[in-house]
Amino acid sequence: MSFPILSAQDAAALINDNDAIGFSGFTPAGAAKAIPSALADRAEKEHAEGRPFKVGVVTGASTGDSLDGRLARADAISWRTPYQSNKYLRQAINSGQTRFFDMHLSTLPQSIRYGFLGALDWCVVEASAVTVDGKIIPTTSVGASPTFCGAAKKILIELNRFHPPALAGLHDIYEPADPPHRLPIPLLNCSDRIGTPHIQVDPSKIVAIVETNLPDECGGFSPSDATTQKIGKNVAEFLAAEIRAGRIPKEFLPLQSGVGNIANAVLAAIGEHPDIPAFEMFSEVIQDSVIALIRSGKCRFATGTSLTLSPDLLKTVYDDLDFFKSRILLRPQEITNNPEMVRRLGIITINTAIEVDLFGNVNSTHVMGSSMMNGIGGSGDFTRNGYISIFTCPSLAKGGKISPIVPLVSHMDHSEHSVQVVVTEQGVADLRAKTPHERAALIVDHCAHPQFRPQLHAYFEAVKDGHIPQSLAAAFAMHAQFLKTGDMQGVDWAAYGLV
Amino acid sequence: MSFPILSAQDAAALINDNDAIGFSGFTPAGAAKAIPSALADRAEKEHAEGRPFKVGVVTGASTGDSLDGRLARADAISWRTPYQSNKYLRQAINSGQTRFFDMHLSTLPQSIRYGFLGALDWCVVEASAVTVDGKIIPTTSVGASPTFCGAAKKILIELNRFHPPALAGLHDIYEPADPPHRLPIPLLNCSDRIGTPHIQVDPSKIVAIVETNLPDECGGFSPSDATTQKIGKNVAEFLAAEIRAGRIPKEFLPLQSGVGNIANAVLAAIGEHPDIPAFEMFSEVIQDSVIALIRSGKCRFATGTSLTLSPDLLKTVYDDLDFFKSRILLRPQEITNNPEMVRRLGIITINTAIEVDLFGNVNSTHVMGSSMMNGIGGSGDFTRNGYISIFTCPSLAKGGKISPIVPLVSHMDHSEHSVQVVVTEQGVADLRAKTPHERAALIVDHCAHPQFRPQLHAYFEAVKDGHIPQSLAAAFAMHAQFLKTGDMQGVDWAAYGLV
Repeated sequence: MSFPILSAQDAAALINDNDAIGFSGFTPAGAAKAIPSALADRAEKEHAEGRPFKVGVVTGASTGDSLDGRLARADAISWRTPYQSNKYLRQAINSGQTRFFDMHLSTLPQSIRYGFLGALDWCVVEASAVTVDGKIIPTTSVGASPTFCGAAKKILIELNRFHPPALAGLHDIYEPADPPHRLPIPLLNCSDRIGTPHIQVDPSKIVAIVETNLPDECGGFSPSDATTQKIGKNVAEFLAAEIRAGRIPKEFLPLQSGVGNIANAVLAAIGEHPDIPAFEMFSEVIQDSVIALIRSGKCRFATGTSLTLSPDLLKTVYDDLDFFKSRILLRPQEITNNPEMVRRLGIITINTAIEVDLFGNVNSTHVMGSSMMNGIGGSGDFTRNGYISIFTCPSLAKGGKISPIVPLVSHMDHSEHSVQVVVTEQGVADLRAKTPHERAALIVDHCAHPQFRPQLHAYFEAVKDGHIPQSLAAAFAMHAQFLKTGDMQGVDWAAYGLV
Repeated sequence: MSFPILSAQDAAALINDNDAIGFSGFTPAGAAKAIPSALADRAEKEHAEGRPFKVGVVTGASTGDSLDGRLARADAISWRTPYQSNKYLRQAINSGQTRFFDMHLSTLPQSIRYGFLGALDWCVVEASAVTVDGKIIPTTSVGASPTFCGAAKKILIELNRFHPPALAGLHDIYEPADPPHRLPIPLLNCSDRIGTPHIQVDPSKIVAIVETNLPDECGGFSPSDATTQKIGKNVAEFLAAEIRAGRIPKEFLPLQSGVGNIANAVLAAIGEHPDIPAFEMFSEVIQDSVIALIRSGKCRFATGTSLTLSPDLLKTVYDDLDFFKSRILLRPQEITNNPEMVRRLGIITINTAIEVDLFGNVNSTHVMGSSMMNGIGGSGDFTRNGYISIFTCPSLAKGGKISPIVPLVSHMDHSEHSVQVVVTEQGVADLRAKTPHERAALIVDHCAHPQFRPQLHAYFEAVKDGHIPQSLAAAFAMHAQFLKTGDMQGVDWAAYGLV
């Protein structure tokens, strides 16, 4: 038995209006590229000829422009979950053109198996190899692909020759059984292998293979600056002090780190700190800074669900694949983000906030409470279950017009019950075992920018009553001021009845 | 070796001002009684003589009046965690007299072991038996007692003869190792035993035994009424429909249920539904309604961390202890509430909300955003990790002056990402795979009371823009209206700039 080889156009022609598709991809790494692009072309043609054509799109997390960007620009996405980071798709979501629901990434695979999202017509998965008996080797991410392959009625494979055959062995595929038959995940260490190096599918479901040779559409990151470096140093010094105090074991614990410039700077600072021993990572995304830490020996092992590297850096990894294959392992997001694993391993979690309020609640998703940025991603999976949960953000945004430290977050993703430590370039607020009053003082005095401290103090001193002191009338006054004047400064608290 | 027998007064005299004490108790069940009462007497005397006397109080969850009530009235609690439900203590917390921090109950034991709450000077634990080599048999709850016993420098035991010696075997004590040495919790079924029937302590830490004969201070519940019965029926019918649709396995799944009148009515309705098979419970609190379900065979097995029964009902259980010991098992709260267990077993979670907003965010803790009611308890542990998470509330409160369905919750404990189903006596809103716009329509039309629907529709139709449509200026207008007039009705949206 072998599989038909089709062009991307011919493969896309098999897909019907209204089909639900699970695409591989967690970040641009390992995302399907040729078929979604061809599908966008097809949608544009159908629309030009007056016919409806939209599909439901499920992925591991965000993807590359060939998937979310192309399909969004073609107005071809009827609904989308669980996460995205593409500006065109974001516009479609915020305008109501695309139905989007934002999910904890660890729950996506089981929600599909449980039938909560309806049936999947297709799985479109990028592979570095496939065998006639249905063994698929993924490329640079695993994400939710094993579940999509199992749940979908039909499978299309993008066989991407850009990736070397030696990639086989970089993945560990394990999918839990569903309740009432689920067993403990038998993973005790970051480097344990508990599954197979391939996704096993029923070969009769593989409709066709599309051959490609396409790099991942990963952008680079902007270099760190004084602010992100200071945030990194503050996190590293906090962790070193916790080791010294005996509250983190002296052998240290695995790290999870979010994505982006702050995360890169934080990891670099942890790597440089003399009092933090060599460590392991148990994270979602293995990004640029991790590669240097592995080369230097500071990071002994990194497991995640995607290898999201700048193109040039990925090339250096492929040039040295034997070295990295004993130090990097990719797993399904249902394992990397699983509460069972995060709590058992005692992962130290470090994620980035859009806003933090006086009581330690965190907004990770919505600008001014309404406009979706990307989604909650794995931040909830990790934060809620971490050994210590840390959120980072700069103390100023928009050139000083916005304070990410606000009286009340305009959307809440992580509550005061789960957020333990807040870090800006100004300092560290350790919220553990603190009352709301104490948290407010720590967050304003240690984390807010000095230019916003008097305004925040004025609010807090006017609303001292209650376990969580606040004025529902004035809680969003800084947001209202920004919407009115373009600057969160200059709130007249007296106008809100506060003195 | 045997242990000194002291009076409660003499035991309380050993405790110093500023000591931190871990007391047994999860609800009034199994809570220490004699020593905290004597400690309250002592605090009053010390205060009368002009000396400071306050202690830090940690328990499993809430307790009885002899503990939280007596100590709060004596102004003897400097700080308190993780949960409470006593009106005097609530006043002390909301006035700032007592420092309180609200915690997910599953995280309390490890937070103590990790050193995040500081050292414990004492553990005061109620026991039904104790041996010279330090084996303690708890009474009607386990809670966090194993951890308190292990972490505290010194132990005082209230040996309570009210409970029969045959209670031995009702408990299964298992405490996980801490990272990086933690192993999978080896529990696969509700009825599995994975630990010992006793808490093993270092006998040299046992300072004294106080002999008592005191019933638990559990109140009864008010009988169900038409509203709670209808909520119960709506939940039961929703679950039966999910079984029929194949989204819940036909053998059903374990249930977790919160505490109180609604929870009792919900369990009764599930028990009566002909299409729901006999089930097991994996919950925090085993309360009155469960006993009838066990006797009828509808509940095959119930495991929890406390047996919180009305006094007369507990007596009937003790009269039939052999029957119940093969059908009830008490575990530490670190196991009953553990995310690992909740997700693995696929628990269906049912908890009660104070407020629910248009997008499915839930307030479980704070009245009007400021005033602490009880605490988050285990609702976060269960909701986030459940197979299906359900929140219930009546559609009206305060004689119709308050709508628990509001534009935006005034405090958020459970975000839209974790709340899947909302049920009132009006109906059911199934939020799975729904966008915020769709959720708002479902919640208003299926769950809000008809008398509030026009006002909620008027808000929602005026703020249609954005992924989460809302007006930060008007989101709390119904709360403001209530604070001003005593009634959430009659909001003038135009005054908030909405048309």
